[in-house]
Amino acid sequence: MTSPSELRKDAVSGRWVIIASDRSKRPDDFRPAKTAERPRVSSAFCPFCAGNEAKTPPQIFALAGPDDGSGRAPWRVRVVPNKFPAVSRGDAPARTKSGLFESMPGIGVHEVVIESPDHDREMADLPTDHIRDILTTYQARLQSLETEPQYAYVQLFKNKGMDAGASLSHPHTQIVALPIIPKRVKEEIYNSDRFFRKTGECLFCRALAEELGAGERIVLKNEHFAAFEPFASRFPFETRIFPLRHAPHFSGARPEELAALAETLSAVLSKLKALLGDPSYNLVLHQSPHPARARRHWPEIERIAHWYLEIIPVLTHVAGFEWGTGFYINPVVPESAAKFLRE
Amino acid sequence: MTSPSELRKDAVSGRWVIIASDRSKRPDDFRPAKTAERPRVSSAFCPFCAGNEAKTPPQIFALAGPDDGSGRAPWRVRVVPNKFPAVSRGDAPARTKSGLFESMPGIGVHEVVIESPDHDREMADLPTDHIRDILTTYQARLQSLETEPQYAYVQLFKNKGMDAGASLSHPHTQIVALPIIPKRVKEEIYNSDRFFRKTGECLFCRALAEELGAGERIVLKNEHFAAFEPFASRFPFETRIFPLRHAPHFSGARPEELAALAETLSAVLSKLKALLGDPSYNLVLHQSPHPARARRHWPEIERIAHWYLEIIPVLTHVAGFEWGTGFYINPVVPESAAKFLRE
Repeated sequence: MTSPSELRKDAVSGRWVIIASDRSKRPDDFRPAKTAERPRVSSAFCPFCAGNEAKTPPQIFALAGPDDGSGRAPWRVRVVPNKFPAVSRGDAPARTKSGLFESMPGIGVHEVVIESPDHDREMADLPTDHIRDILTTYQARLQSLETEPQYAYVQLFKNKGMDAGASLSHPHTQIVALPIIPKRVKEEIYNSDRFFRKTGECLFCRALAEELGAGERIVLKNEHFAAFEPFASRFPFETRIFPLRHAPHFSGARPEELAALAETLSAVLSKLKALLGDPSYNLVLHQSPHPARARRHWPEIERIAHWYLEIIPVLTHVAGFEWGTGFYINPVVPESAAKFLRE
Repeated sequence: MTSPSELRKDAVSGRWVIIASDRSKRPDDFRPAKTAERPRVSSAFCPFCAGNEAKTPPQIFALAGPDDGSGRAPWRVRVVPNKFPAVSRGDAPARTKSGLFESMPGIGVHEVVIESPDHDREMADLPTDHIRDILTTYQARLQSLETEPQYAYVQLFKNKGMDAGASLSHPHTQIVALPIIPKRVKEEIYNSDRFFRKTGECLFCRALAEELGAGERIVLKNEHFAAFEPFASRFPFETRIFPLRHAPHFSGARPEELAALAETLSAVLSKLKALLGDPSYNLVLHQSPHPARARRHWPEIERIAHWYLEIIPVLTHVAGFEWGTGFYINPVVPESAAKFLRE
């Protein structure tokens, strides 16, 4: 009962977590129940399926599929505006403030990347050349949105499964361009800036070097990427994928890096699917705010921001303790999670 | 499609949210499925039920029940150590740092308040005098833990229902004493301190006054408390309960305040249960860090910290967008939620 847990601090976010592995043995009167499985929608009713293109707003971008000789080259990856956007294009927003009540119109862009015409094939099930095409599509859209400096930050993320917040089951990714730099992003950049001014080094490069040096939390490594369970993981099997080369924006990734990232993602997602029973997960891109907007706070923004991907399988719930403290209690030791994923 | 959403900033936490009410009309191919209902455990196997007292670690505190003439006065509220604690008592922790890897032993206290002997009666179902007894128990334990300044912060929270992270269904509350001041708490105090130095006012008192002035987000108000949906609610039906009297710690609440809080909680929880289909929720106490620990950063800690309760019904999922940005997308306008709860 008194075997002590451990508090660990994440250098990148500044967040403390409690690694309390004893709690995973907790007896409970709830089954480890999964959310009741959703009914599979017939693809006739899915707006993201091939053949239903007219049900989405007008296409923004697509990669064509291989020519099958039929004269009809189907798309492989397709980008459309979100039909129910969280933010919408409009004039540069004016903040209004009345006492403490501060607000502004929800100006921005909200797009959806439909990852393949196939309703039932998750990213983990796709061949790596298809995943590379999805990544190329991400890159094209991010490059385009980055030409508009009124968008201070572009957030790319994927919710897989209802428990992860997906409301449509056809595999897709979302891209949201925002008029302000979000809090979570500022926190990481603030920490990195402080570290840079002390050491002249990028905090993310340093964190990666230390994880590679320690080795015990590495899941896999190739010529361009490393996947690891961070030292202060908030959640069981939380995984970060870092590029080995310092780069502030995903949009600057080189073709050989996109190919290697496709291999890395395929391997990590396949392991999570096979070993953890196809969990819901969130895939989240972290990267630099728009330099034109960030430079006034952080003149060295290109040297202190470093893009990476984060995968969060949904295996536990965010509960009252987390809401109150911002602390997380993780019942699985990251070293054990990494070992499990490596083997 | 382009009706703009609104970005709102919460003055207390400094957090932006997107109020995007159009998204609530989103068609989707998931049912609004609730998690599969857990099997009700027979009370013979529940360590928190009356008669099973020997299954918990030794009792720390209890309020006796009314004498029923049997010579056996059963407990009404009972406090025991958590059998699977996130943190455990021990010597003052030493931080260790190796490169960026910073850690310390998980020193602290983790207790469980068993709210009644009855497995099936939620707080919303209890008479208000029983709720007042639960609050009195909270207060007694917090007062006791606050005599130990090695605990920088005491977090009280309740997870109701599996979706809210509860692992035992018998109604209970948890209390965790921590060796450091958590990030989320620091953020609020930091904002309040800045406001105080500019205006000489408590930020929480001011936020409450402005909500009362606006009126449209108030759910109910009595002589000692106001319940409201905050201007920048992250979640549908997120509710804050503020004491009208400035006080940094819950442990300083007066008897008449505890009685009024029992009435307030009973009314709010009953409304949420009746109107939203008995949702899972988190109940979270926010309050001052230990003054002996906080004063070195914030000499005016007693004037800038202000306790309050927060209720978060679990109706949506935290998804990739939230993990990446720290921003929340709320599909229900707080003014509409308050109106719905008032009527």
